[in-house]
Amino acid sequence: MHCTFASLRRSTLILLSLTAALGARAWSDEPIIPVPNARQIAWQEAELGMVFHYDLHVFDGKKYGQGGNRITPIEDYNIFNPERLDTDQWIRAAKAAGARFAILTATHETGFALYQSDVNPYCLKAVKWRDGKGDIVRDFVYSCRKYGVKPGIYIGIRWNSFFGVHDFQVSGEGEFREHRQAYYRKMCEGMVREICTRYGELFEIWFDGGASHPDKGAPDVLPIVKKHQPNCLFYHNEQLAEARWGGSESGTVPYPCWATFPNFYSHAGDTPRERVKLLRTGDPNGKYWMPAMSDAPLRGYNGRHEWFWEPGDEAHVYPLEKLVEMYYKSVGRNSTLIVGLTPNPEGLMPEPDVRRLKEWGDEIRRRFRMPLARGHGGGRTLTVDLDRPQAINHAILKEYIAQGERVRAYVLEGLSDGSWVKLYEGSCIGHKHIAQFEDVTVTQVRLRITKAIANPLIRDLSVFNVR
Amino acid sequence: MHCTFASLRRSTLILLSLTAALGARAWSDEPIIPVPNARQIAWQEAELGMVFHYDLHVFDGKKYGQGGNRITPIEDYNIFNPERLDTDQWIRAAKAAGARFAILTATHETGFALYQSDVNPYCLKAVKWRDGKGDIVRDFVYSCRKYGVKPGIYIGIRWNSFFGVHDFQVSGEGEFREHRQAYYRKMCEGMVREICTRYGELFEIWFDGGASHPDKGAPDVLPIVKKHQPNCLFYHNEQLAEARWGGSESGTVPYPCWATFPNFYSHAGDTPRERVKLLRTGDPNGKYWMPAMSDAPLRGYNGRHEWFWEPGDEAHVYPLEKLVEMYYKSVGRNSTLIVGLTPNPEGLMPEPDVRRLKEWGDEIRRRFRMPLARGHGGGRTLTVDLDRPQAINHAILKEYIAQGERVRAYVLEGLSDGSWVKLYEGSCIGHKHIAQFEDVTVTQVRLRITKAIANPLIRDLSVFNVR
Repeated sequence: MHCTFASLRRSTLILLSLTAALGARAWSDEPIIPVPNARQIAWQEAELGMVFHYDLHVFDGKKYGQGGNRITPIEDYNIFNPERLDTDQWIRAAKAAGARFAILTATHETGFALYQSDVNPYCLKAVKWRDGKGDIVRDFVYSCRKYGVKPGIYIGIRWNSFFGVHDFQVSGEGEFREHRQAYYRKMCEGMVREICTRYGELFEIWFDGGASHPDKGAPDVLPIVKKHQPNCLFYHNEQLAEARWGGSESGTVPYPCWATFPNFYSHAGDTPRERVKLLRTGDPNGKYWMPAMSDAPLRGYNGRHEWFWEPGDEAHVYPLEKLVEMYYKSVGRNSTLIVGLTPNPEGLMPEPDVRRLKEWGDEIRRRFRMPLARGHGGGRTLTVDLDRPQAINHAILKEYIAQGERVRAYVLEGLSDGSWVKLYEGSCIGHKHIAQFEDVTVTQVRLRITKAIANPLIRDLSVFNVR
Repeated sequence: MHCTFASLRRSTLILLSLTAALGARAWSDEPIIPVPNARQIAWQEAELGMVFHYDLHVFDGKKYGQGGNRITPIEDYNIFNPERLDTDQWIRAAKAAGARFAILTATHETGFALYQSDVNPYCLKAVKWRDGKGDIVRDFVYSCRKYGVKPGIYIGIRWNSFFGVHDFQVSGEGEFREHRQAYYRKMCEGMVREICTRYGELFEIWFDGGASHPDKGAPDVLPIVKKHQPNCLFYHNEQLAEARWGGSESGTVPYPCWATFPNFYSHAGDTPRERVKLLRTGDPNGKYWMPAMSDAPLRGYNGRHEWFWEPGDEAHVYPLEKLVEMYYKSVGRNSTLIVGLTPNPEGLMPEPDVRRLKEWGDEIRRRFRMPLARGHGGGRTLTVDLDRPQAINHAILKEYIAQGERVRAYVLEGLSDGSWVKLYEGSCIGHKHIAQFEDVTVTQVRLRITKAIANPLIRDLSVFNVR
């Protein structure tokens, strides 16, 4: 059988009927295993997103240094003047790379808000640009919807160089500090409420460095997001992390990388080293569903690692082959990849970045648009037929993660000249695994699950010949 | 001679010709004594001004407490919503009381700026009122010019509950504090530059609690004012005080109160008690011209002392007789009186305050509009004739202060039934002294200067019968 599901839509409804077909009867005997919620499924299925970093210091002509910026207010916020701002152009660039969602830093570490806040005066109301009426969050969300890219928002509340906040703590001492801390807490809650109520449905809300815990005096943001954005992935505070940081800013995770995690709070672990290791690998026995994000700035190549635009960084845009490798090592390893983009002071994505994003998207589409064979099904073995003997070198494997990560070990085999030869073996599949191997000419491909914690549910086995 | 100078204009040009007539030839032999500059002359001649206090907490429905407010940011700055704001009405009220200048708190201790600042985002750009386009400094200055009242601006930089500034010091520690302190310094300098360049000529700039000294890291405001507002009275920092606080907020100074002072910086003196005493009395031997301001809030009577509007304070508007007494003990004692007014949350001066101001102005005009006799001249004695025997009980004495305070002691005598009787005796005259005494029926009044440090130059001796 040559299965092509070119028309398979990424819709939970269709998946649910698929599940029913795959073996619902068997489930009653199976252990209770962690499963994602609808927000997590959507986020994992999205696979690739972009996070746009934009802040005052993009305009200051100086070298950005995070540590220094955190303790140094930008001298003149009226340098913020993106005269040719075009968020449509941003989102076209993201979409060309294959991004299905895009996130904007509504605030970052300066504390400056890229919208018309009524609770944080240090925002686009304060600047001369667009006569103080600019709202880049609005423009951004509008452009996302125009191009069918899901909008998300990043809010930085952990640092605020203007108001004097360092690692959540308002500077100072005594009552004055306490009162300003309480004020800041309400300011942050107010911003989250504004972000959650003004711009329609959001795909993800990303709190920079986490949003701490209200018991420690941090803003109580979770109820606000829950109330106003029930379909928005919450990332993250010490009460909830619906995804976890993948432990590096390299855009990759190791293999295997499980979506399950032993703690409800992502930054757990006895030592920093253990903590980071856990973030990178997850834990197949973890009780909490918390898939890994891989993140990296597009301008992260060859000695630079810049989330924010700086002049002369064009040469540090990742080369195409590095981006393809990053894709393999993130999306292809059961992790959602979020790449950092940063518009220039004119308000446009720089042309070199735009070109590279399109090259990247084109290359991924070229590789994986058309499988030579495709199948899905429940049980220990899944076989797909090729029409005729063909060389293959890639396979994409996907579990039906709505029912959890069930596979623990598998072998991929090809029928070559009448005998089964091993093409690949692995452990984790999860939402997606890209298996790459040497060219072998085969007429059939067989996935044998050698270890599983419940009846395996394979949503997709596709094979490719990538040249 | 019955001298009436009803048409005498308060203009330096006319005063200069007057001086020439009075005895310029004698001056070459005289000691060098402190004299006012043109800004100080104008300020002393203005005699009565109003300072309008308006800030966020007028709108919060809570009791204002200065200490608490200084360390507590206002929870929601969008409470600032003076829907019926009418600065014309404010200035008409001030003018009805006789004010010749009016000052507005562009910023007070919250740090919130009542105009469209480009350097302090915590300003009228931040609020919904007037769609973020309101500028009360502009409206205020415009209304002042419309009614012929000279506009001045009060800027508070010593405290800023929003940004975290207490007694000039930005909260916090280490580099972060230093950087924010440097930022705040530039923010303040920027605000002073905006105030000094956007609204035309200002009469006085008043730095709340002084502006400290740039050598201590304070904003370097003096050069900005000097450059852009050469005709604006500077009050004050540790480099310059063109006037001094009169040592109380009672609206009065003791008698005598000299315009000269021993230090160029007003808050000098070895102990706080000495310092306040000096501020109140000045020093006839002081080398620096630094006339005293008397200040008091209009709502300062009977157990309240409120610079800011609060509900239910109508009963604490000073009664008319107290205001007349205040006028005698300030303007009548060689001190410029500045009375604090505060518009209500609607943006209007409350009616009880408006009525009282008019009653006060009417009463002062009624008392002193028409002298029974008037004269001026140089030398030890000045006599004015009444047309016929008339009862008098007040005299107004003025020196020509452009040449300093020369008189140290004097006696005022009346020719009654053919013999000279003493009506009053005093020490300081300065810009103006109001002498009040029991009714005496006289045909002539004679001012005898019994002690002077140089040829006395009497600009005005007017006598009145006040009923």
